[in-house]
Amino acid sequence: MAPRDAASTGADFLQLNIDDAPTGGRADWLARQLRLAISDGRLPVGSKLPATRSLAADLRVSRGVVTEAYQRLIEDGQIAGRGRGGTVVVAAPLSAPAPTPVTAAQSPPMTPFTTPFTTPPGPDVFDALRAAPARIDLSPGVPDLAAFPRAAWLRAERAVLREVPASDLGYGDPRGAPSLRRAVANWLARNRGIRVDPAEVLIVAGTAQALGLISQVLRRDGISAIAVEDPGSLGVRQHLHSWGLVTPPVPVDEDGVRVDALRATGAAAVMLTPAHQFPTGVVLGGRRRRELLRWAGAGGLIIEDDYDAEHRYDRPPVPALRAMLAEHVCYAGSISKLLAPALRVGWLLAPPKYRDALVDAKRFADLGNAVLPQLVLAHLMESGELERRLRLLRTRHRRRRDAMIAAIRTHLPHAVVHGAAAGLHLTVTFGGPTGMPPTGSFDTEVSHTDVAPTEVSPTELSENDVSDTGLAAAALVAGVKVQPLSWHCLRAHPPGLVLGYAASSPTAITEGVAVLGETLRALHRPPLTATP
Amino acid sequence: MAPRDAASTGADFLQLNIDDAPTGGRADWLARQLRLAISDGRLPVGSKLPATRSLAADLRVSRGVVTEAYQRLIEDGQIAGRGRGGTVVVAAPLSAPAPTPVTAAQSPPMTPFTTPFTTPPGPDVFDALRAAPARIDLSPGVPDLAAFPRAAWLRAERAVLREVPASDLGYGDPRGAPSLRRAVANWLARNRGIRVDPAEVLIVAGTAQALGLISQVLRRDGISAIAVEDPGSLGVRQHLHSWGLVTPPVPVDEDGVRVDALRATGAAAVMLTPAHQFPTGVVLGGRRRRELLRWAGAGGLIIEDDYDAEHRYDRPPVPALRAMLAEHVCYAGSISKLLAPALRVGWLLAPPKYRDALVDAKRFADLGNAVLPQLVLAHLMESGELERRLRLLRTRHRRRRDAMIAAIRTHLPHAVVHGAAAGLHLTVTFGGPTGMPPTGSFDTEVSHTDVAPTEVSPTELSENDVSDTGLAAAALVAGVKVQPLSWHCLRAHPPGLVLGYAASSPTAITEGVAVLGETLRALHRPPLTATP
Repeated sequence: MAPRDAASTGADFLQLNIDDAPTGGRADWLARQLRLAISDGRLPVGSKLPATRSLAADLRVSRGVVTEAYQRLIEDGQIAGRGRGGTVVVAAPLSAPAPTPVTAAQSPPMTPFTTPFTTPPGPDVFDALRAAPARIDLSPGVPDLAAFPRAAWLRAERAVLREVPASDLGYGDPRGAPSLRRAVANWLARNRGIRVDPAEVLIVAGTAQALGLISQVLRRDGISAIAVEDPGSLGVRQHLHSWGLVTPPVPVDEDGVRVDALRATGAAAVMLTPAHQFPTGVVLGGRRRRELLRWAGAGGLIIEDDYDAEHRYDRPPVPALRAMLAEHVCYAGSISKLLAPALRVGWLLAPPKYRDALVDAKRFADLGNAVLPQLVLAHLMESGELERRLRLLRTRHRRRRDAMIAAIRTHLPHAVVHGAAAGLHLTVTFGGPTGMPPTGSFDTEVSHTDVAPTEVSPTELSENDVSDTGLAAAALVAGVKVQPLSWHCLRAHPPGLVLGYAASSPTAITEGVAVLGETLRALHRPPLTATP
Repeated sequence: MAPRDAASTGADFLQLNIDDAPTGGRADWLARQLRLAISDGRLPVGSKLPATRSLAADLRVSRGVVTEAYQRLIEDGQIAGRGRGGTVVVAAPLSAPAPTPVTAAQSPPMTPFTTPFTTPPGPDVFDALRAAPARIDLSPGVPDLAAFPRAAWLRAERAVLREVPASDLGYGDPRGAPSLRRAVANWLARNRGIRVDPAEVLIVAGTAQALGLISQVLRRDGISAIAVEDPGSLGVRQHLHSWGLVTPPVPVDEDGVRVDALRATGAAAVMLTPAHQFPTGVVLGGRRRRELLRWAGAGGLIIEDDYDAEHRYDRPPVPALRAMLAEHVCYAGSISKLLAPALRVGWLLAPPKYRDALVDAKRFADLGNAVLPQLVLAHLMESGELERRLRLLRTRHRRRRDAMIAAIRTHLPHAVVHGAAAGLHLTVTFGGPTGMPPTGSFDTEVSHTDVAPTEVSPTELSENDVSDTGLAAAALVAGVKVQPLSWHCLRAHPPGLVLGYAASSPTAITEGVAVLGETLRALHRPPLTATP
């Protein structure tokens, strides 16, 4: 256990140890080791070899030994000098075992996920849908990614890298970087009507992580059920289930979640999207807010998923429930719909009783979010860049939404459009000629039944036995990616589709909706030509 | 639920809605709203107001209304025009309630953590130690952060932002970006002797998250105990406990973990640091590796924490256990000790039977790591930048280690140094004049007892009743941050300190160790002057 005083005799590169080489045959030995590494795939075509000087120093041999070994492989045609690009592997022997596929060109696709349209949808359903190739992607939940402010991000990153003290690159505060916590508190005050002390802001890896942390903390507090909206996000339900919670469904009507039905579930907590209900787009009405206030005052906990509240077109802003009910609301927001989901940054505000437990849960989840992106984001939020971008996005998104509604009127004339006044998606339902009345409410003529969480009843689109899941599957074959409404419904419901418009150009949207129309007509025999 | 056709009548900014304003008194109303927001802290000093043109457009009022309202607040002295910097809040009324403290200068420190040197150490012990002010920080586990390649990182980020397709900024593959998975597979082949298909690499948010994911998956597989090394990392134990696992300790001697004692615990899994045991620094010997092989072959699972294996000075590289035992090893590595812990990027290789479950756990933890830092890191790994940096770090770290050993010889002459041939830290134990023999092994004269996980027995440094925790606490008061060996020990052990040298300059190290010497002598009355 005393410090070893033996000199270093090896290289990290291929774990080469010169002690293994016969004296006098070192170049031979090194050439052999390199050939072996090339043939067994540890050094695939395209890899760089270390500079001769460095490798010689590591191995404690003269530089001539390394130069000689490299020269042999150059003569073999296996490696080549590329000037300032260094020495690179250019070919592997044909007779060798297949090299590990580690360059982009050689790589086969990573293990595929399952197909997306299984019933019930599996835990990898969204990964499978994302990975499925399609010409036009109308999946909901993504903003205009082409508008990501690359130049502003790089400028902010440069400023951060210039300013950040080295000590901030070590392990950080699991609650988040102080500058981002302040920036989020200011953002929420300016844009969501929420007054919060930065010390109460917990930075998380997106709303997905917020749900996991909340689930763990509530379970430890003896809460095993979180009621969810129905229709409501399949993704949210999957996350809650994976953390061991059950999710009794609560019907949503044109004023939002039905508080009487919530009360009837007996659940101690409910997950809500009050500003723009997913997927129906309804806004939680004033009377319902007051009813919820009473429910929460009697001990209920509201988990508010404020996922896309900043995006609105034809209606005034809707304040967050958290602004009224700080003591009874866990508020989750994120940058995913404002900038990009790939950033994986969100924030969580919790009632005092859960705050310390949530910090512990975040610490033991990952020791806190990565620091550099937090500092960059704080720059963008405090400089006003994010508000400027939101303004830009609103104009672009509105144009795209209008293109989608126009295309629906043309190509899906029987569809009813829901929730298009805000957000990044709209929902269409199909009624009329299929025997189901066009309905303005997802709760019309459907009674509340307590369906088991994973059981989905895809409603038929028509007497011809085509479900909305079947329509989405056929659309994917035709090159258009959409989500069936069934994914997001537990109780009986009109068939429908959830269509994202924010991330596609108006041209792509128009074409995509036309394909949906053709697909629907092809599935319906006799075709739906009558009664526009 | 039909799309609302009402025109937008509100601004996100302060949730202002012009419908609330009396007709003809709009400028008055707006000025009042702004004053209210300044006085209640929603607009703290330093906040920017929107451009008059933008706010007027949002509110659907003429620009003159906004200009007039702003003018009133300028006259109040509450806001001021700053040319291209826009209009900024410069003062809040004195009579108003205290504004929310949301600028860096105004902000009080965030909620403090508890003091670090409680017994037993609490869940926030490392946060508390990190947050404690100190002139010299000799905490272990952090590389030379001043050497973080800021320019190379920014260059790679620029390249990534130029190249990345917009669609990659959406939700990503929970397993990680393909380019980073390939880069990690190549890195492990070149530097750790591991051959792995990139499809088997799971990108995670550091080793901390890897432990959480493994814990969840093993618990679902019916495994409730993971044996740990003793001495062994307190942090690792805390993480495993937080995920509901128990951690029977297994003694470590000069050849590493004692496999006979591991077998005696009956645990189905063990967490190991084979290349550079934490904190003792011993290397798992060849015979022990073969014994472990047999143990694993009979069904045992090894979790290999390869936390700082790339840093070595006076010894040949030690291959990873994963290279020999792919079917029985969960391998966890990270960028924390190579670049910076603040990046929160690591990788996990798992046996086939756990791979899908770990992907599910990662998905439901956070939907996958953030994409941009993954792509930047892939650039740095594939360009050879990381190897260049490791070479640079080795030179700097070796100099710092040598400075620490020299300072220990001068200022702590009775201390025994352990594990200094590699890594980012060394451990000193105190024996000799305190009645405890200077020992080369942590297992000497101490029999194995199965101590409960959180029970720590701080061994006395001397008959004067000073524990190593007491020494660390006194050193912190004197401005030097170190970790007591007791934190990392479950069974009886010699008193000691774990000292990181990688992140401090040789001058700071020398001064820090001198302070430790003075602190130790001040605690010992009569002073330890005899028998050098």
